[in-house]
Amino acid sequence: MTLPTYADVLAAAARIAPHAHVTPVLRSRTLDAMVGAELHFKCEHLQRIGAFKFRGACNAVWALSDVEAARGVVTHSSGNHGGALALAAKTRGIACHVVAPDNTIASKLAAIEAYGATLHLCAPGLAAREARCTEVQHATGAVLVHPYTDPMVIAGQGTAAMELLNHCGTHAYHPLDALIVPVGGGGLASGTALAAAALAPACRVFAAEPAVGADTFASLQRGERISGSQPDTICDGLRGTLGAPNFTLLRTHGVEVLTVDDAETIAAMRLLWTRTKQLVEPSSATVLAALLKHRERFAGQRIGVILSGGNVDLDALPQLFAKEPA
Amino acid sequence: MTLPTYADVLAAAARIAPHAHVTPVLRSRTLDAMVGAELHFKCEHLQRIGAFKFRGACNAVWALSDVEAARGVVTHSSGNHGGALALAAKTRGIACHVVAPDNTIASKLAAIEAYGATLHLCAPGLAAREARCTEVQHATGAVLVHPYTDPMVIAGQGTAAMELLNHCGTHAYHPLDALIVPVGGGGLASGTALAAAALAPACRVFAAEPAVGADTFASLQRGERISGSQPDTICDGLRGTLGAPNFTLLRTHGVEVLTVDDAETIAAMRLLWTRTKQLVEPSSATVLAALLKHRERFAGQRIGVILSGGNVDLDALPQLFAKEPA
Repeated sequence: MTLPTYADVLAAAARIAPHAHVTPVLRSRTLDAMVGAELHFKCEHLQRIGAFKFRGACNAVWALSDVEAARGVVTHSSGNHGGALALAAKTRGIACHVVAPDNTIASKLAAIEAYGATLHLCAPGLAAREARCTEVQHATGAVLVHPYTDPMVIAGQGTAAMELLNHCGTHAYHPLDALIVPVGGGGLASGTALAAAALAPACRVFAAEPAVGADTFASLQRGERISGSQPDTICDGLRGTLGAPNFTLLRTHGVEVLTVDDAETIAAMRLLWTRTKQLVEPSSATVLAALLKHRERFAGQRIGVILSGGNVDLDALPQLFAKEPA
Repeated sequence: MTLPTYADVLAAAARIAPHAHVTPVLRSRTLDAMVGAELHFKCEHLQRIGAFKFRGACNAVWALSDVEAARGVVTHSSGNHGGALALAAKTRGIACHVVAPDNTIASKLAAIEAYGATLHLCAPGLAAREARCTEVQHATGAVLVHPYTDPMVIAGQGTAAMELLNHCGTHAYHPLDALIVPVGGGGLASGTALAAAALAPACRVFAAEPAVGADTFASLQRGERISGSQPDTICDGLRGTLGAPNFTLLRTHGVEVLTVDDAETIAAMRLLWTRTKQLVEPSSATVLAALLKHRERFAGQRIGVILSGGNVDLDALPQLFAKEPA
């Protein structure tokens, strides 16, 4: 198992610079007041493909040798990584295959195809995805770019926290006290841990996880990785289960998991929509839900919050926002 | 009838500078490609209170003498102007009364009260609103700040287009070819016409109007103001009818109205949400709907587009996004 380092994050930043956006950082007086802290929202929903995932995929694609690149790339993804890899492959002009569960939201599937990738639908669940991915890999010779265990993907995701820490002033009188990101497979969380450890060692890193099937929480509690759970959450971006290198990095860097249930996430998403006018997806709202739930732990602190993506399935909104029957 | 001039827009810009945001200008490759033009989106949904209305209200409040201000202010509004005046009054520490129809969306009413204003609900329709407003005015001595006919309000709204024109380069090799804004009572449209005439005389100004009860379109066609219509549109910010000074300014400056139906507006709103991740309200989407409907007229042009507000009623989304029954 190859673990990436902060040097890989720095290399990733240089590699993706011609292709990825340096996303803006937003503030909200109202949300600051509600949490009782100073929140700096890193807007990865404004990243290309509408999610941070483009950073890791782009880094992985451009880190390939010309010979490897010529074989094309393949991955499995419940959505954002698929679109990200498809666009990253397009920037390098190489073939891309994406295996996606057939319950992936329509807008994410459409994005993958719009970027010119070949789509392979499979049954939901990690086992089915991995099996199908191996098939495609063997049939096409394409290089696997795993959505969250690939070291180049982890390093690429770390550039979001690197930008945020630098933006907020790592060498200033007062660097960020904490960073919080959502966790599914752990690519963003482990990359964030690498960046924080290097740039602001005193900055604690938190990961917000849907309470249903919270395998990252359980894994870190138990000290060994629990795999095989299949979280049934509205956070469609967080249905992966923690990867092995991700587990090691989160554990090494003392990342703490805060769990939130879907109702808390929906309430936080409504707040983000109403107060910042930013259309973030449910996965992104887990972080605000966690901050609101644990206000006492963050009181008065400067906190970096990564809004991970904005690929909302508008057709699912009626269910998401339906009121309880009277 | 006192008509504001561009000098009033300039004075407004100076007056509101300590209180209002200079909002960002966004671009979208996808939307540019869909319209076949270069679109510069002025993000007034990121203005304070989530709408351009704060500009006009703030200008009107701070243009009062100390003696006038001490009496407080009163207005009637279907929503955004009420919140705007409430916050503007709060910035000056004076009393504010807002008359609002009882079908105003809940989030807008809540905002008005949150800023410390006194809310007076009335029946929907301009006549009921004006009658109630006069009552409150007599009872309290407060100064009326009309939502769109007040010259200081019009001048304040003009600062959005002024900023956008300056941002895009009025003296550059190629200023904006066109500006497009939504029209209800005409405050934003007439202020925009003043700014465009002064800063970029060749820049045409368009106003997008809901086709149902399109009184501005009819008024400009006929050459006289038609009042008294009560538009039944999903664009809750555009239910006012064209004011007298607004009519004169739109007519003088040759503003052209493009009508769009609600289905086109909803489709355009979905596009804006999906492509820019910005939560704009239906009124704001009329402008993109009009551009898409009249692509041939805007081909290859540089166009300034004012996204007027982002105060979406999330509880109404299930109806707004409900699919047609099969």
